[in-house]
Amino acid sequence: MVAVGTKPHHARSLAEVLVEGDHRGHYSHGLNRMDMYVKDIQSGICAKEGEPVVEKQSAATALVDGKNLLGPVVGNFCMDLAVKKAKEVGIGWVVAHGSNHYGIAGHYAMLALKENMIHVIHQHVPTGGSTRGKQCTLGTNPISVAAPGKDGDSFVLDMATSAVALGKVELHDRRGDSIPEGWGCDAEGKLSTDPKKVLNGGGLVPIGGSEATGGYKGYGLGMMVEVFCGILAGAHYSSNIRTWKVTDRVANLGQCFVAINPENFAPGFTERMSDLMSIQRGLEPADPDAPVLAAGDPERTNMKKCDELGGIPYHINVVNYMNDCAKRIGVSPLLPCDKVISE
Amino acid sequence: MVAVGTKPHHARSLAEVLVEGDHRGHYSHGLNRMDMYVKDIQSGICAKEGEPVVEKQSAATALVDGKNLLGPVVGNFCMDLAVKKAKEVGIGWVVAHGSNHYGIAGHYAMLALKENMIHVIHQHVPTGGSTRGKQCTLGTNPISVAAPGKDGDSFVLDMATSAVALGKVELHDRRGDSIPEGWGCDAEGKLSTDPKKVLNGGGLVPIGGSEATGGYKGYGLGMMVEVFCGILAGAHYSSNIRTWKVTDRVANLGQCFVAINPENFAPGFTERMSDLMSIQRGLEPADPDAPVLAAGDPERTNMKKCDELGGIPYHINVVNYMNDCAKRIGVSPLLPCDKVISE
Repeated sequence: MVAVGTKPHHARSLAEVLVEGDHRGHYSHGLNRMDMYVKDIQSGICAKEGEPVVEKQSAATALVDGKNLLGPVVGNFCMDLAVKKAKEVGIGWVVAHGSNHYGIAGHYAMLALKENMIHVIHQHVPTGGSTRGKQCTLGTNPISVAAPGKDGDSFVLDMATSAVALGKVELHDRRGDSIPEGWGCDAEGKLSTDPKKVLNGGGLVPIGGSEATGGYKGYGLGMMVEVFCGILAGAHYSSNIRTWKVTDRVANLGQCFVAINPENFAPGFTERMSDLMSIQRGLEPADPDAPVLAAGDPERTNMKKCDELGGIPYHINVVNYMNDCAKRIGVSPLLPCDKVISE
Repeated sequence: MVAVGTKPHHARSLAEVLVEGDHRGHYSHGLNRMDMYVKDIQSGICAKEGEPVVEKQSAATALVDGKNLLGPVVGNFCMDLAVKKAKEVGIGWVVAHGSNHYGIAGHYAMLALKENMIHVIHQHVPTGGSTRGKQCTLGTNPISVAAPGKDGDSFVLDMATSAVALGKVELHDRRGDSIPEGWGCDAEGKLSTDPKKVLNGGGLVPIGGSEATGGYKGYGLGMMVEVFCGILAGAHYSSNIRTWKVTDRVANLGQCFVAINPENFAPGFTERMSDLMSIQRGLEPADPDAPVLAAGDPERTNMKKCDELGGIPYHINVVNYMNDCAKRIGVSPLLPCDKVISE
């Protein structure tokens, strides 16, 4: 990123969130996307100079102009501001316009887990449909919420409000598998189990699937994210947002960051939080081999695996892709690895 | 309610939310539940004396003790306080413990639509399951968000984070119909299309249905509601909450009320909000007879129907039920109606 002109501290912000995506096992949001950010800076569609600016603020709120900087630069700026306000008045609600794609939403939710409960909502590019509609106008519109428990334990929800992420459909397509009913629809807006139909003219459906099984709730939650991001921030929204991976114009994404200080509410938050997670994890599972989890547990398992390996394992395709990218811009490739892990 | 000793202004708060439930077409949350509130006051399990008390507050937050008063009394108190704070610092985040069931969540979300965007989350009694778990520890845990558009138009989301409400399963059971897969599970935690299995030892599943179709997202959202209500407020949570309709002990429900003032963010909120709803409503529908809606549209249709009829139409069973209740406590029955509408 620095080689193509990104300021070093902006590059660091991006590096942190991408590596964290991989560390948590969300490889679709990690180094795998490096090239996109490099191109955004090279083409100038994303700004490399300047810093985000607070346009309007109160003790508890702020409106930020992201100045078209890299998403993680805007995200870190907003989350820091939200946490600062939460320390003073118990809550900070910060929205940004003029932002860009910022990696995993959970990164921002976890930024101040030690002191705060954090609730992040952000807006994505259109890949998802509306209950009853043919055209995709909503994004995967993720919601992330992190809350601290005792002894470093935490609840970390990080979810798209579409039934699944697009990458899961692509994976099934590459394998030649059909997808479960309730993931996506064809170009006519009908549910389809054919990944090709979903990828070519169709789209993801909101969580809940069809109208009969409550898909209108996922659609409502997706709209809620539009309201808290594009609408509240005065950024692009719905069909005004540019298409995913089409970078012919500035993204102007809206994002929303909320920090809540449990100290402003009932004492003993972390103890109750740990108790709640213990109750859930201790439930008798329907399948003895699949224990009940709390949000964040699958990611914790992946991080533990990485820590035991002494690093994040990457598929050789990702390493080759990164090294092609490194070669193109004239920087050192990833070091050769002495631990090759077969799948 | 006054006949059994409720203070008149508390009774009025309850009356308003119950009638609004019916007016909006959510008959499961209206007069149909009158008897429950009457019994709660008669038995003394719900308090009739006193007012809610602010235990702790900042410019933007408050912790309220609901003093075991009727849910709508606590809800109105908290929402008024949240709106007052939002007028001053852009946001008010108020949580209550010691509350009771409060009718439709949307009522509180809509309280100050004229000036504010409002976001309410509340906690319900355990009727819902967790992804992978056998036992039901989470409630239907609704989320409600209301946001003002132009000329009185609005976005009003009011949804349980379970796939459906329990009443829908009961309705299918009474009719002898099976339920769609993805609504509920049996006592072993397996998805079932038999309403009897769901009602007897089984439970509702979170929105998204099975793990394959994203049910863990609904489970995560249900947990998020527990965090913002029971955990943040220091009220009961998860399996500590008393069973639905079992009133052997005080409910001590936690509820969370948030008011956000769009004036603290980008100018032109209501215009963008109306534009977003226009985009969605204008989408070409997959089925020409089922237009794409915005959250709140089905309720608007029901309210319009009531207004044209000059009142809320009730099923004769509800009228008889209300009049039995009136007789028992010695108050006037509902007036005879000259407009009998057949279903």
